[in-house]
Amino acid sequence: MMNRPETTPQDEPLSKKRLRLWLKLLKASNLIEDEVRRRLRHRCTSTLPRFDVMSVLDRAPQGMKMNEISKLLRVSSGNITGIVDKLTEEGLALRVAVPGDRRANLVRLTAKGQAAFAEQAASHETWIDEILGGLSADDIDGMIRRLDHLTNSLEEQ
Amino acid sequence: MMNRPETTPQDEPLSKKRLRLWLKLLKASNLIEDEVRRRLRHRCTSTLPRFDVMSVLDRAPQGMKMNEISKLLRVSSGNITGIVDKLTEEGLALRVAVPGDRRANLVRLTAKGQAAFAEQAASHETWIDEILGGLSADDIDGMIRRLDHLTNSLEEQ
Repeated sequence: MMNRPETTPQDEPLSKKRLRLWLKLLKASNLIEDEVRRRLRHRCTSTLPRFDVMSVLDRAPQGMKMNEISKLLRVSSGNITGIVDKLTEEGLALRVAVPGDRRANLVRLTAKGQAAFAEQAASHETWIDEILGGLSADDIDGMIRRLDHLTNSLEEQ
Repeated sequence: MMNRPETTPQDEPLSKKRLRLWLKLLKASNLIEDEVRRRLRHRCTSTLPRFDVMSVLDRAPQGMKMNEISKLLRVSSGNITGIVDKLTEEGLALRVAVPGDRRANLVRLTAKGQAAFAEQAASHETWIDEILGGLSADDIDGMIRRLDHLTNSLEEQ
């Protein structure tokens, strides 16, 4: 009895190949994100949404409105409010009134918040370096080139 | 006055390169996922969590327990229950009692559910083919090879 030949990636139609790539891309990015969440929780007693909020505020020293943070991070205003309340309680962020708009506040990091974020961001860079440690400079360049190509074509669509 | 030379990707330390890759990987996978969500909503009146539940059930013709679905998809039991209730109302899934365990139910797709999912899965494959259309077979092979390498090293960690 003849064995049915296995489909090799060479025979595989391009549409199946692309689907396989997407599932692998999703898996890798979930694995990395999980590992970052785990380390933030255990090593910084923080969370990914909180790290993301601090990161956004760190790049806006003049301050940001709550709804701007929410839109940028695609996280509900309720969640952002909870995170900002907590950061404010801990003296890491503060709310500043917007001149001429009594209903709006700007949120910004305090000096203590900037220092705390600088430390976490440095740890985050080290973790990513460890997590992606299996990839050489050539691997990284190859992937970045293809991801840029993909992202550009998606943003054009 | 001399211009400060710009840092080119060649000069960049490997840790920065890896960080850049991670941010690009995350961006690309979010863009693709958003586009899939949008198409599921507009073209199939479905959602990504619902599609994922149907996909899991489709691969388990003997049925699955709610908590197994929840664990596999990393979605809360409450959300899974909501989705399964809806699928059941629409005649796409059904709950079957587990012999010897009065508290547990198995969920499986009905024939109608299988047919509906087959149609959605075919659309999904076509969309991914369109969305990743900018990548050639070589690009895809190159990325898959690197992602496999990355995922293997992450799973070993």
